[in-house]
Amino acid sequence: MVAGGADQTETVAAVFLPEEREVVAEVGTTILDAATAAGVHLETICSGRGTCGKCRVLIKGYDAPPPTWVDNRRLSPAQLNAGWRMACEHPLTAGGTYMHPLVETNLRTVESVDLGKITLRPNVRKYMIAPTAPHLEDQQFDWPRIQDGLAGLTGGVDTSIAALRKLPGVMSQVGKGPITVTLVGSRAADFESGDTSEAMYGMAFDIGTTSVVGSLINLADGAREAVAAELNGQAIYGGDVITRTSFAGEEPENVEKLQMAVMETITGIIDRLLREAGVDRGDVYECVFVGNTVMMHLLTGLDPGGIGVSPFVGVSAEPMTMTAADLQLNLDPAAGVYLSPSVAGYVGADLVGVMVSTDLENREDNVLVIDVGTNGEIALATGGDIFCTAAPAGPAFEGAEIRQGMRAVDGAIERVVLTDKGPELSTIGDVAPTGICGSGLVDAVAELVRVGLVNAAGRLLPPDELPPDIPPALRHRLIPDDEGGDFLLAGKAPGSPGAVSLHAQDIRQLQLAKASIRAGVDVLLDRAGLRPEELSEVLLAGAFGTYLDPGALLAIGMVPPVAVERIRAVGNAAGLGARMMLLSLEHRVAAELLVGRVDYVELSAVPDFQWIFAGAMTFSDEVESQ
Amino acid sequence: MVAGGADQTETVAAVFLPEEREVVAEVGTTILDAATAAGVHLETICSGRGTCGKCRVLIKGYDAPPPTWVDNRRLSPAQLNAGWRMACEHPLTAGGTYMHPLVETNLRTVESVDLGKITLRPNVRKYMIAPTAPHLEDQQFDWPRIQDGLAGLTGGVDTSIAALRKLPGVMSQVGKGPITVTLVGSRAADFESGDTSEAMYGMAFDIGTTSVVGSLINLADGAREAVAAELNGQAIYGGDVITRTSFAGEEPENVEKLQMAVMETITGIIDRLLREAGVDRGDVYECVFVGNTVMMHLLTGLDPGGIGVSPFVGVSAEPMTMTAADLQLNLDPAAGVYLSPSVAGYVGADLVGVMVSTDLENREDNVLVIDVGTNGEIALATGGDIFCTAAPAGPAFEGAEIRQGMRAVDGAIERVVLTDKGPELSTIGDVAPTGICGSGLVDAVAELVRVGLVNAAGRLLPPDELPPDIPPALRHRLIPDDEGGDFLLAGKAPGSPGAVSLHAQDIRQLQLAKASIRAGVDVLLDRAGLRPEELSEVLLAGAFGTYLDPGALLAIGMVPPVAVERIRAVGNAAGLGARMMLLSLEHRVAAELLVGRVDYVELSAVPDFQWIFAGAMTFSDEVESQ
Repeated sequence: MVAGGADQTETVAAVFLPEEREVVAEVGTTILDAATAAGVHLETICSGRGTCGKCRVLIKGYDAPPPTWVDNRRLSPAQLNAGWRMACEHPLTAGGTYMHPLVETNLRTVESVDLGKITLRPNVRKYMIAPTAPHLEDQQFDWPRIQDGLAGLTGGVDTSIAALRKLPGVMSQVGKGPITVTLVGSRAADFESGDTSEAMYGMAFDIGTTSVVGSLINLADGAREAVAAELNGQAIYGGDVITRTSFAGEEPENVEKLQMAVMETITGIIDRLLREAGVDRGDVYECVFVGNTVMMHLLTGLDPGGIGVSPFVGVSAEPMTMTAADLQLNLDPAAGVYLSPSVAGYVGADLVGVMVSTDLENREDNVLVIDVGTNGEIALATGGDIFCTAAPAGPAFEGAEIRQGMRAVDGAIERVVLTDKGPELSTIGDVAPTGICGSGLVDAVAELVRVGLVNAAGRLLPPDELPPDIPPALRHRLIPDDEGGDFLLAGKAPGSPGAVSLHAQDIRQLQLAKASIRAGVDVLLDRAGLRPEELSEVLLAGAFGTYLDPGALLAIGMVPPVAVERIRAVGNAAGLGARMMLLSLEHRVAAELLVGRVDYVELSAVPDFQWIFAGAMTFSDEVESQ
Repeated sequence: MVAGGADQTETVAAVFLPEEREVVAEVGTTILDAATAAGVHLETICSGRGTCGKCRVLIKGYDAPPPTWVDNRRLSPAQLNAGWRMACEHPLTAGGTYMHPLVETNLRTVESVDLGKITLRPNVRKYMIAPTAPHLEDQQFDWPRIQDGLAGLTGGVDTSIAALRKLPGVMSQVGKGPITVTLVGSRAADFESGDTSEAMYGMAFDIGTTSVVGSLINLADGAREAVAAELNGQAIYGGDVITRTSFAGEEPENVEKLQMAVMETITGIIDRLLREAGVDRGDVYECVFVGNTVMMHLLTGLDPGGIGVSPFVGVSAEPMTMTAADLQLNLDPAAGVYLSPSVAGYVGADLVGVMVSTDLENREDNVLVIDVGTNGEIALATGGDIFCTAAPAGPAFEGAEIRQGMRAVDGAIERVVLTDKGPELSTIGDVAPTGICGSGLVDAVAELVRVGLVNAAGRLLPPDELPPDIPPALRHRLIPDDEGGDFLLAGKAPGSPGAVSLHAQDIRQLQLAKASIRAGVDVLLDRAGLRPEELSEVLLAGAFGTYLDPGALLAIGMVPPVAVERIRAVGNAAGLGARMMLLSLEHRVAAELLVGRVDYVELSAVPDFQWIFAGAMTFSDEVESQ
């Protein structure tokens, strides 16, 4: 305004490579905008908002300007030192030459039943290059030659010894065809002769206390090539995280024993996945792991002891990047490993996976997510805030500590309806009932409450207290004893061959389990200032969530009173989250942003928690509101 | 000048922590200058020139400005993201609060015969912190608690799983005393209860083709606690780099065999060093390695095949940082490993070590350095430029391919003077001579040339061509044969018991070896536009350099004609360089800057090299200038 004709439109000219196209733009136009205006196609996902890191250019013709905050966040030190900058951050400069990477044209958006729609943007990328051969006037070593070959395609890259060991064999073929370089992040992990760009796989693991599930994923098209589940080999050291944590603390070498046990399970799954899909071990470039915090600790050989005792503090909840060699996986030693971050001692990377696959960070409505298991992990998203907590539910949902409880295998009662003629039962495998699993237990208790055999306080009523309208076919199944009585679901008498009954103590176990989860839910609703009816969705994650009947869960009051159609099972959402983090860096970034945003609520530090828990014991929200 | 009272002195006020001292300075004053003016002691080595990376501050009170180029080079991404900036790069800002790390007061400058004066600034640092204990209202995990505890002492730090495994045991003692955290670079590698700051060791290795030398160094005071040398276990696969390189190429598993062989030597040396010095394995935090390029390849399991054939191109010459676990060293898996960079296929990390210990990057005069060995590595520093090359000398200096040649062990002739009464010999161990080693060979040939038994062209003259002034006691020792004759150094007749003679073919071998080195020197001198007399020093590195007589080297013309007092042996300068890189980051940085500056000259690509080589064959510079 003061000097110089600022009201005249001054322009600058610069050149974009590899098109060699000259671009003229007004002074102050960003490199990105100038390119876009001139039809030079720089890749961008965020349209210049500085969040995607894609529109990078290698600046030549003048000294690269000091990196901005955004440059620094999105580019590696190697890239910055080489002169790469974000095109959205800097003005086009007269005389500048800007080399931009080839736009990734192989980005595919795929859709599947479980993944929904996802744009493939894996951390693993393959680039074909044709490095020049060395000669006496150009004695550059192999690795810088590869780096030069990649310069036009990507920014600065690192590598590792394990990968470099593969380089000489490939470089001896230089000149006879292209070389495919595989990047895991900005680290070159593999070098191959010829075009191998379609052979690119990853694995996603959900390390559960009970079982480990692994998926082999084709990173080129998103397809799940194989899935395999095995019981977690740590089971011999204890059935739940508490016994394993205390076993870990007994002897210094026990942590290593537990680590080796789960590693044996994992390496077995890896072998199975490769065999079943017919995929080469060397074509698997990355593994993503989720699991509860104790499992994530044991996977990496960290003592989870601190998680077992108040204040429930572990060693590290940060995301970790390492190599297959670091974890001693039976994959190429240079393959990458990504361990999802955790939130707290009992809100693990598995719930982070659930939050990713339920897209919780982008939900603007009020969504409650419950991952039902030995430890219920609960998240509540509301208008940008995310609260979460962990509720120690105990093993009732797994059928443990229930007299005739069993896992969900053939012979387990999974559905119960009480009619005037007696119980109508469905068993897994349609065989004679031999016990009851979690979903049968929830159903049975819900029905007992509905017909009035169990009151709102959870007491199996003695015959003399029963309401008069109880049909005789049910009334006669009530077998009083000194411990509160038994209800015969199948067979002639408790304990007789073929008999399955539900004892008052079993009902008590379920009541404690559901009260724990419900109390956690109530604390989060209170923290968010929400009433149950304001929830637009209640999502049930995990295998139990899939089999539990939403109506029954409402009836026993495990979930707060919402319309039953708002309750939806989302399956193995943790494992799905791991697959999404494998297939798209955006979901991985989302996971890391999420854990920074989540507000963790420690139930044992909530004032008057015992009263909230007691209130959650009731078997009927209708009763509660009376 | 246009608006605002720019001629008035405006000032800003800000606060420095941990002193809590308010500082007032003129607008535009850098944070560093403002602190210095106010007596707040920020550490700086380069006085604000942006090269030392020491004057970092954590900016609070306003958003940290975008990192500058210097910030980016000197601070890690973790530090930058946390808000650390270089105080010399940014202006003091009103309302700012600047937390600076405690000045490292334990920097010691030590002096020893071989190291000279060196300021200890190892990559390994120990910090004592007192983290807070977790409780239900503060459930931060162990590792972020450590990070917080370090924040006032250093910038952002990373760690590894191997180190984190040690954390729970130490954190269980929180509150009972301080915790010592050991950083290797910006990576936390160890956590210990109590103050262990004096227990801090490192090792420096020089991996030679023939032997491996390791030193155990006290990083707290610079003392060499132990030194051990072993023959390189690879010897069973070949005596020199050429045979090992070709063995490596024969079978795919041979590279691994060679790697395991040298690793066995190294781990043996590590055990010996620890035992001899009584140092705990867990107190060794870093190892620095130098060696020729083939040895550096084999150490990391890289196939050196490309170095064996023209154009002599290896896999990678870059400096590498890894962990003891990566190399499978018998040290704490989290200990650091630094592999010095190399320059070219035959100018390895060992010559980089030589250049570091001879301070070549700071020499302003003209200095020639020759590392005499099977491959002569030669560097010439002149007014800021550094030229270097490699000359394939062959094994003559080791006594190999010499008929009665032997290593420098008892019985080897190491000094020869020819007098009127015959040869005066010194043997190693003062025993009867059984052969001749490199220094004896050089001496003998120099004497034969001096008295005239060998002419300038290198021919052992037949009796009938001898000058008349040759004393009979020498003349009679000349034994003609069909292959050029033999000169009897000891004993009665060639081949008789106790006889040691030097054959014309032996003289030829030495002539070829010295010509190779001299030709390399001449090419570098020519490249630098220097005459020999302009050299202020000729430094001889390596064991051979220590034992070769400067006068004899001048006499045979291996070194160019300079005053004999300018020739100086610098011992195992490569190993010394490794120790300096271990003791001071500044020397490590110097090594990396050096390899970027060095101008490597490939002799086989020099036009007319055969003529230069032929010219270098002559045994007398006097003759040359006739």
